[in-house]
Amino acid sequence: MRIARFEVGRLARYGVVEGDSVVEIRGDVFGSFDTTSTSHSLSEVSLLAPVTPRQMFGPGLNFADHLHEATAITGQSEMAPTPEPWLKAINAIINPGDNIVIPYDSTTGIEHEGECLAVIGQVTRRVSEEEAWGRIFGYTCGNDVSERTWQANDSSFWRGKGSDTFAPIGPWIDTEFDPRAGGDMIVTLNGEEVQRASTVDMYYDFGVLVSYISQHVTLQPGDVVWSGTTGRPRVMSPGDTVVVEVQGIGALSNPVVMEPK
Amino acid sequence: MRIARFEVGRLARYGVVEGDSVVEIRGDVFGSFDTTSTSHSLSEVSLLAPVTPRQMFGPGLNFADHLHEATAITGQSEMAPTPEPWLKAINAIINPGDNIVIPYDSTTGIEHEGECLAVIGQVTRRVSEEEAWGRIFGYTCGNDVSERTWQANDSSFWRGKGSDTFAPIGPWIDTEFDPRAGGDMIVTLNGEEVQRASTVDMYYDFGVLVSYISQHVTLQPGDVVWSGTTGRPRVMSPGDTVVVEVQGIGALSNPVVMEPK
Repeated sequence: MRIARFEVGRLARYGVVEGDSVVEIRGDVFGSFDTTSTSHSLSEVSLLAPVTPRQMFGPGLNFADHLHEATAITGQSEMAPTPEPWLKAINAIINPGDNIVIPYDSTTGIEHEGECLAVIGQVTRRVSEEEAWGRIFGYTCGNDVSERTWQANDSSFWRGKGSDTFAPIGPWIDTEFDPRAGGDMIVTLNGEEVQRASTVDMYYDFGVLVSYISQHVTLQPGDVVWSGTTGRPRVMSPGDTVVVEVQGIGALSNPVVMEPK
Repeated sequence: MRIARFEVGRLARYGVVEGDSVVEIRGDVFGSFDTTSTSHSLSEVSLLAPVTPRQMFGPGLNFADHLHEATAITGQSEMAPTPEPWLKAINAIINPGDNIVIPYDSTTGIEHEGECLAVIGQVTRRVSEEEAWGRIFGYTCGNDVSERTWQANDSSFWRGKGSDTFAPIGPWIDTEFDPRAGGDMIVTLNGEEVQRASTVDMYYDFGVLVSYISQHVTLQPGDVVWSGTTGRPRVMSPGDTVVVEVQGIGALSNPVVMEPK
């Protein structure tokens, strides 16, 4: 099942995607809900980020083929020694199709990081890796937009990965996707493939990540855990279009613009 | 004016504190509201954390007399070189009177950090220091509970300052308090004074902090900025009671317990 959040007449609603339509639901998306008789063509609605997390967590270096890039950015010379997360800022969230904005005071520009996101479905505290899988509601796509100078020089990622518009999320939550079975995460920049890796190659999988976080943080329905990224992301320029696709889920497309001064 | 958030019959409400009573309000606490004819004795209600922030930001080392302690914890040997913030986790928030829980897997225990908190009142983006002061709705007290081993060894503060219960906030928001005029932030542990400093001694004041954060983050009504702490906090033990008072605002009291395994 695919759960979308969308806007019709300036009201945000949840719905189930069926073919080219989205059928509105009534109830709690993380609890029990029913579909209604109201449906819309996907082309007639504006998709929103499919979840409004209270908090989001990113892992440390989580794909072996990103090691070279990470070493260049931060000097880190080995994979994340633990599944230790960092907080990805909520203010950064934008919808499918929204502009990714390059801050005018960025000196080195911003890069894409295409990722798979796990959406928590239940209150989760001190669970095992095995239990953790059962607490995940579904998966979506995200772009962990990063300003490398701030990422390298600041003591946290508050703006390096948390500036406004640095967290495009969408297009919907797929509740049947299984990252253990694998889905390629593919990023294209203006149509050219620039990143590709499978979710099966995560160094710490979502079960490990969710279990580890839950030892100290009570996760809530809607909270999000990012997969980490792969390869060597590129700098994005004004006018670019960046697409993050996770095969089996869908594709998230966002244009890139420069912030006016 | 003092704005409290409290629980009566399991419903959370906002009210204006008048003497020993709290008068319920109708409307938007950050917009326009009216007082109603319903009031309660403060002794009959349970005070809640007076704000439900979307995000919270702490500063780096912000009081000169905390330098020695910070050096011992993290090796940092000078004041924060910029007003750079870090994200204080939302899951950590607890109410006045709630238990601060020592995680059973903490090896070195947890310490108090008594602080003054600024509560944002308006959507705030790229404002000057002067403008920033006008975006602050009011002030409350907070305890930036810290596990020093995790703070020192992890690459971010996600659990060192973000574990569940590590953010007691309250007792209410005081909209007339002026940190530039000064209010002593006093912490007592089982009645003994263990921290004291004035808000006028903040190295970066709230105008600077809010302005700096707003260059990259759109702050929302209810978001919170912490002052940073002072002196040499102590380890808290099960059975302790810790009180953070900001003179002119009020006092926030929390017992300390050990997490059962």
